[in-house]
Amino acid sequence: MRVGSNVRAGQNVLISSHVAHAPLARALARQSYAAGARYVDVQYGDPHVRRAMIELGPDETLDYSPPWQIERVEAMAGNAMIATTGDPEPRLLADLDPERVGQAKPIELRKRHLEIVSASTCNWTGVAFPSEGWANQVFGKPDVERLWEAIGFCTRLDEDDPVAAWREHMDRLERRGAALNALGLDRLTYRGPGTDLEIGLLERSHFGSALFRTVDGHPYVANMPTEEVFTTPDARRAEGVVTSTKPLAVGGDVVEGLQVTFEGGRIVDVQAKHGAELIRADVGVDENAARLGEVALVDGTSRVGQSGLVYFNTLFDENATCHIAYGAAVFAGHEGTEPHEGINVSKTHTDFMIGGPAVDVDGVTREGRVVPLLRDDVWQLPE
Amino acid sequence: MRVGSNVRAGQNVLISSHVAHAPLARALARQSYAAGARYVDVQYGDPHVRRAMIELGPDETLDYSPPWQIERVEAMAGNAMIATTGDPEPRLLADLDPERVGQAKPIELRKRHLEIVSASTCNWTGVAFPSEGWANQVFGKPDVERLWEAIGFCTRLDEDDPVAAWREHMDRLERRGAALNALGLDRLTYRGPGTDLEIGLLERSHFGSALFRTVDGHPYVANMPTEEVFTTPDARRAEGVVTSTKPLAVGGDVVEGLQVTFEGGRIVDVQAKHGAELIRADVGVDENAARLGEVALVDGTSRVGQSGLVYFNTLFDENATCHIAYGAAVFAGHEGTEPHEGINVSKTHTDFMIGGPAVDVDGVTREGRVVPLLRDDVWQLPE
Repeated sequence: MRVGSNVRAGQNVLISSHVAHAPLARALARQSYAAGARYVDVQYGDPHVRRAMIELGPDETLDYSPPWQIERVEAMAGNAMIATTGDPEPRLLADLDPERVGQAKPIELRKRHLEIVSASTCNWTGVAFPSEGWANQVFGKPDVERLWEAIGFCTRLDEDDPVAAWREHMDRLERRGAALNALGLDRLTYRGPGTDLEIGLLERSHFGSALFRTVDGHPYVANMPTEEVFTTPDARRAEGVVTSTKPLAVGGDVVEGLQVTFEGGRIVDVQAKHGAELIRADVGVDENAARLGEVALVDGTSRVGQSGLVYFNTLFDENATCHIAYGAAVFAGHEGTEPHEGINVSKTHTDFMIGGPAVDVDGVTREGRVVPLLRDDVWQLPE
Repeated sequence: MRVGSNVRAGQNVLISSHVAHAPLARALARQSYAAGARYVDVQYGDPHVRRAMIELGPDETLDYSPPWQIERVEAMAGNAMIATTGDPEPRLLADLDPERVGQAKPIELRKRHLEIVSASTCNWTGVAFPSEGWANQVFGKPDVERLWEAIGFCTRLDEDDPVAAWREHMDRLERRGAALNALGLDRLTYRGPGTDLEIGLLERSHFGSALFRTVDGHPYVANMPTEEVFTTPDARRAEGVVTSTKPLAVGGDVVEGLQVTFEGGRIVDVQAKHGAELIRADVGVDENAARLGEVALVDGTSRVGQSGLVYFNTLFDENATCHIAYGAAVFAGHEGTEPHEGINVSKTHTDFMIGGPAVDVDGVTREGRVVPLLRDDVWQLPE
């Protein structure tokens, strides 16, 4: 309420919650009103209904965006939004036709959502809620209490003053971004087991943390937890192969052992031990889905990384280590909303994790100087 | 699916469900797709969020209708709608300021909803889902299994062929309506303990059952269960006093011992053993809320009545016995959508129960002939 969405008096607050997260949604609603919200709308999503659609609905319906849902997304502009995460039934769609699962996305809705997020008119955040199903996936048993503790640790709720701890943490990430920006990097390189990748940066690529500001200057932290500094890469320049270092929960299934090959900025090959079809469908969803939209650096001080767990949840796992996303660019800072040369536009945006102690990450400056950024998960620049 | 909403192939199906009714909402979504639905939208409502609004939200918010909710209601036109009922926490709002509870209604949303329902462009129905909280209210203990059985009995799920049983049942109610219409009634009179009431009918008042048809002739049963024949009375003519014969669940509380006095068609006095303020606030919500919008006749063959239970739920209890509603007129049959002289228009519509073995109901024809309709809960006309 005070760090994440940072709700302002008089705002509407749009809460998007899994039905199983109702206790959290209710607490968020109460606290939103206590913070001076004008109106709080909780929309509960239900993947069982989505499953019914994928299994039994007509083809034309899979990517349908109902006008009332679009109207609700439009209402984010000028208001606050909070989304809950933490899938209580992560394998719910695992037995369905992967192609239909991949197609089952409300395209127009996601596009407008990304546009409004990119326009920085909404203060928003994402927060997690534990469940037996999620705990079972993480620990192999439904130990919800232990998952509460892990989430509390990752989100700094174990601190005496969590709000102050968050402010300190975000200051440090902001300084890290500033140091990267001062280098004037042309590209990043990744070398490790199954990974030899080069990603081009744009002259205007600006590293920042998830401490965002709305266009009128109101700060908010868009993900909780967050451990990353990230930017928009040059969607035209990516070469080589990269192997995912963590499982990736996507479309109700878990992709494992993902290996992706880039040529001329595009993903040209997708392999995986499990779930390659899901990624192939996602990467093929439109013209530029196969190009990169985000590159993020995370070191070993990450609380998510330190917890030593795989959460099978992108919001957490992407913060354990370095990651990249194919699909739409996420603008770091205030870089405008119009698509530009080299800044990707797509209807999808999927993060996957490529860092860890075995992966060396370097920056190469526009003058050709190689600057080590990560060695054995240790941040190499002065802080 | 086949009797209630009677979903048509290619329709969107809008399901409005309490969060606690998710198992039913999921089953309805699956069966809607199986019946050929194009798209199924489940919107889960959460009275805890509403409670937070009433308790902590600003005054201006209480009757706010979000544009995205209005957009969803507009989508009912030409499509199917299913609403679930059965409150798992019926006393959730009981400790709040009754005036604020009464004011907490999305006025514009309800108005558009009633307009679309009255225009007969949507095939819709309401169905119940049991819960511990509801069972506790009915039985004094959380016997969900017994509530399932009662609901099954009331909705004819105990029949070998429930669909055929429903068709037979609705035929009988339709014949009953036709017999009433053939009488040419000018008014109804009610006499019993604490009741001496006369309600005027319009020349165009047409008795019908909840077997409705859309403007293009598609049949649906708008309530499950349903036991009533009902019509729109003359909102200008109601005189006398009437005492409610069943508790009335409204605004998260239960009104008991309600007694209402009419003069010149208007409610001029509201008394109750508990909850009078809730009814007073509702009756005062707009200019014509205090006038009648519905009058319904139910005899002792009602399965709801036969079950011998008080459900603390209007959909059930109104079907146990005769009832009336103040507020907006519900059009029986196809009587158009425009307000007319004597047909009430309001933003509210609240049913309460006034029949039973001790209440004699007569019709008086336009020629002044008195026709007994109900004696000791027995229907007096030939069927």
